Amino acid sequence: MSNSKEVSKSTIERLPKYLRYLIEIDKLGAVDISSTTIAEHFNFNPIQVRKDIAQVSKKSGKPKTGFKVKELIKDIQNFLGYNNYSEAVIVGCGGLGKTLMAYSGFLSLGLKIVAAFDSNPALFGLEVNGLKIHSMEELDAVINKTSAKIGIITVPRESAQQVCDRLIECGIKGIWNFAPLHLVVPSDVAIRNEDMAASLAVLSYELAAKQKSD
Amino acid sequence: MSNSKEVSKSTIERLPKYLRYLIEIDKLGAVDISSTTIAEHFNFNPIQVRKDIAQVSKKSGKPKTGFKVKELIKDIQNFLGYNNYSEAVIVGCGGLGKTLMAYSGFLSLGLKIVAAFDSNPALFGLEVNGLKIHSMEELDAVINKTSAKIGIITVPRESAQQVCDRLIECGIKGIWNFAPLHLVVPSDVAIRNEDMAASLAVLSYELAAKQKSD
Repeated sequence: MSNSKEVSKSTIERLPKYLRYLIEIDKLGAVDISSTTIAEHFNFNPIQVRKDIAQVSKKSGKPKTGFKVKELIKDIQNFLGYNNYSEAVIVGCGGLGKTLMAYSGFLSLGLKIVAAFDSNPALFGLEVNGLKIHSMEELDAVINKTSAKIGIITVPRESAQQVCDRLIECGIKGIWNFAPLHLVVPSDVAIRNEDMAASLAVLSYELAAKQKSD
Repeated sequence: MSNSKEVSKSTIERLPKYLRYLIEIDKLGAVDISSTTIAEHFNFNPIQVRKDIAQVSKKSGKPKTGFKVKELIKDIQNFLGYNNYSEAVIVGCGGLGKTLMAYSGFLSLGLKIVAAFDSNPALFGLEVNGLKIHSMEELDAVINKTSAKIGIITVPRESAQQVCDRLIECGIKGIWNFAPLHLVVPSDVAIRNEDMAASLAVLSYELAAKQKSD
């Protein structure tokens, strides 16, 4: 991502937050919203919020009233691709895998899980949220029947890299990794690691810092 | 966090990654490691890695051999507080809550879940991973019997802010939020949001960008 026209990762991370807030205030009847109000809600820098919005919306906010809530919702949804969805497969149907399979919110985030896999024969053929669990031997054949480009990895740490390699061999181009390790992928594959250890480290450090300053 | 001596959030997020890698190569028999090798493994900037290590380890790496793996492991573990643990309570014992309660890796990350709560009477008294599920009415009394300072929130979006407020009333000082919304906390409380929508947005955007450049 070197093109200067590209939108920064931190902007993209903030957009779903704005969207949830806008949908909320739309329900409450709000018609207009200023970038300052959005910034105050999140305790973000107003200049940052204005820049973020400018990158996804062609309409510029009016001096006093700001933006139309409904228009801004549509612009962010369009930018994030929430008006249609990408197909994904999930590998690893343990506790976390099952939780993600049962999560009803993905569709509204533009993601549809279309197939599930596990290496445990006891799970083969079982259904979670209408998704049948397939064996790892079926990975290639089942993925080929879908248009899935995203692979969600919820297997134990030990097998995660191998699963990742196999998904990529099957044509998967984006890996969403929940296993606690750093996966190595080719440069044409996008990867996102959910690193709970990293999250927890930051929380613990900030907690300690706040308690020291008491 | 304005003190210039404080360690940055991004450094803290990288430390658990280094640690996992160092433990891995220690098992494989590695004695010394250079910051350059660590940087290459993660595709990070070597200067960044050197700075990160300098903030947690008093020993400076030797020009050719670098750092002692075992010493560096200890230094990072000490810095992250993994040699002792913080107690935490969890509210919300649905799929994700149960998955976190059953996760055996938290103890090695310095976290011990000591109590669980839910508002669903059908779950009261049940045990997950040796943890009894309490009613929300017992929140105050049960937390007071522990030394928990961290509250993990795995309830639905609708009740998350209310649960957060109640945890803080009970003396919780750090919130680890898995519900999909932005929680508002007083300035003396540390908060970490696991925002899956934000993660997914970044992954989808990078996937699209890589496919365009094909």
